[in-house]
Amino acid sequence: MNKEAVRRRIRAIRRRLTKKRISCLIVTKPANVTYVTGFLGEDSWAAVTHSRVYLLTDSRYTEQAQKECPSCKIIDRAGPMAEAVAELVERLKSVRTITVEESTSVAEFERLGKAVKARLRTAANVIETARIVKDESEIAAIKSAASISSRALKQTLSYIKPGVSESELAGMLDFQIRKLGARNSFETIVAFGPNASRPHHQPGTRKLKKKDTVLIDFGAKYKSYCSDITRCFAVGAPTAFFRKVFDVVEQAQAAAIKKIRAGAKYTEIDAAARETIARTDLPVYGHGTGHGFGLEIHESPFLKAPCLKQGQARPRESGEQGKLEAGQVITIEPGIYIPGKLGVRIEDDILVTETGHKILTRNCPHSPLLPIPMRDKKRPQ
Amino acid sequence: MNKEAVRRRIRAIRRRLTKKRISCLIVTKPANVTYVTGFLGEDSWAAVTHSRVYLLTDSRYTEQAQKECPSCKIIDRAGPMAEAVAELVERLKSVRTITVEESTSVAEFERLGKAVKARLRTAANVIETARIVKDESEIAAIKSAASISSRALKQTLSYIKPGVSESELAGMLDFQIRKLGARNSFETIVAFGPNASRPHHQPGTRKLKKKDTVLIDFGAKYKSYCSDITRCFAVGAPTAFFRKVFDVVEQAQAAAIKKIRAGAKYTEIDAAARETIARTDLPVYGHGTGHGFGLEIHESPFLKAPCLKQGQARPRESGEQGKLEAGQVITIEPGIYIPGKLGVRIEDDILVTETGHKILTRNCPHSPLLPIPMRDKKRPQ
Repeated sequence: MNKEAVRRRIRAIRRRLTKKRISCLIVTKPANVTYVTGFLGEDSWAAVTHSRVYLLTDSRYTEQAQKECPSCKIIDRAGPMAEAVAELVERLKSVRTITVEESTSVAEFERLGKAVKARLRTAANVIETARIVKDESEIAAIKSAASISSRALKQTLSYIKPGVSESELAGMLDFQIRKLGARNSFETIVAFGPNASRPHHQPGTRKLKKKDTVLIDFGAKYKSYCSDITRCFAVGAPTAFFRKVFDVVEQAQAAAIKKIRAGAKYTEIDAAARETIARTDLPVYGHGTGHGFGLEIHESPFLKAPCLKQGQARPRESGEQGKLEAGQVITIEPGIYIPGKLGVRIEDDILVTETGHKILTRNCPHSPLLPIPMRDKKRPQ
Repeated sequence: MNKEAVRRRIRAIRRRLTKKRISCLIVTKPANVTYVTGFLGEDSWAAVTHSRVYLLTDSRYTEQAQKECPSCKIIDRAGPMAEAVAELVERLKSVRTITVEESTSVAEFERLGKAVKARLRTAANVIETARIVKDESEIAAIKSAASISSRALKQTLSYIKPGVSESELAGMLDFQIRKLGARNSFETIVAFGPNASRPHHQPGTRKLKKKDTVLIDFGAKYKSYCSDITRCFAVGAPTAFFRKVFDVVEQAQAAAIKKIRAGAKYTEIDAAARETIARTDLPVYGHGTGHGFGLEIHESPFLKAPCLKQGQARPRESGEQGKLEAGQVITIEPGIYIPGKLGVRIEDDILVTETGHKILTRNCPHSPLLPIPMRDKKRPQ
């Protein structure tokens, strides 16, 4: 990870610590540990004070930590994490209160309470808030992840043919991602036909038919940064209904994307997509219109109404209040789901700029019909 | 999931609740939710009382929950989880204290504290302890997962050839697992040559050489249950040193496996493996000798010394005290790691029986030399 970028982050985080009167922040969430240290291993915590950043790891990772975290003081713990924190705090004489991320488990928090001779507090979203706007090195990694995803899907298209199972197709796409030197940013969703009406369908043994539809929701993780794409295709001639649904979802997505610029309200973007669908006789999706992503696949902001029922046009809970800033990277992913019949979702990754936006997944195959070379192969015309 | 099996589990868990004076347990850890309800979706909690099991989910999952959890009362929450718990507790007039799993985050616990009109307590390992001994349906799923892993590795062997990258090989293995209708139980580790000296190496761009070594640590997840296997191979004629290290690791593993039977102490098994290596001039591994697995890839018991330094024969922290019981399924996975040179680990999955044990991964290719058909293909003799 870019050393100078990590330094800039730490300066911004320290300003936040001062504002919140935090003298020592114990960072336990893996993505946050990576963000403040550059460390990519597991089972490690960080401590951020006004003078130093500490990485608390163990012998499995010390070699890796020395390489990845040149600006951190590395603590090679031999006992439990809570004891390592206690020892550190004892050395930091000026620290009387430590602040622990509220995503920490109750168990760990209680262990800290017993071990550490300092007052304990919790704080929410200190690092997460800093992570909302991406710096240049992060945007570069996300662009690479998006480009790898697009290439991986292109290389998988010839594999979409009658007889392939959902699970197998997901596996082939994952293989292409690996081949391109990346990992999955989450478990690939492949849903054929009516299975796509469940947004969280797990790929199973269902085989692709001669006339069928395919939904693929996937992403590559490259240099720790994610991408997140959904595409829908028709195999064989699509029905008029599928085409209609696809068109409406595409219009809903375009309406939301059009609104994206620094200063746009989250709710305004969410509403643009939902209202496009609400104007038709098709049901509005229950999930969010989009979300931030970066080190994690789901990050703030959430352009969504988490518990919205199918068919409601307006979120019951209005999701996050706020406005977009340049440097945010978000998905826009409206969908239409008709249980027992079909599901269509289209999802792209979008960088917010001062004057508008940039779609990072523009090169990912997007047509509702399977691209010509492959269709020709299956059904010569 | 087997309906009768879930019922038996609940009876056993209720006996535990009575003993611990718990009238309502809030289950938040996903694997525990699956265990008590059979539910395989996400973002859902369970509540276990003496008369009922509740699943708190949302509209995305209600259809799935009705199918997977026939014996649960399903609560379709529309608002935040804490509020759904509060509403439930209000209806359960006899419940004055609710007990929350201590793996819950501080944030969720604080939200519960604000929303729920009842006293809050935490408890550790209530469900985890029940999960240590597997029932028949669980053992059957683990056997299938082990068998799928073995088949997937066999089908990947012909792909181990000079020029393939670690990442690509991992991807091909994952693809074979998917093709067999399963998923990964964790992210596949493939390490070539000296990379294998880091037990947690992440597959990268390193390409396989004509004379090289390969370490693969992987597992399939089938019907929610894991398997966990590590194999090492030599490509081209192995060096005498690799052969020696391989033999010692194999002996260490055999010594530990030999001790496995109901009633054997965890520490006795751990020591058997470590002492075999300690008798040589080779360094003893720092990680655990093995661990339980099932719904999660790492479960109790941990036959290990988590923070042991390389080269120590005896764990500094003695890991878990306790004895094996019939029906436990554990890994045995000693290793020898020489930084900059090589790493060898051999890991199998073992079912504990009353009179001894059963190795579930016996069919997984095990030779230090790449199996003949593939070697012939590459280097006809």
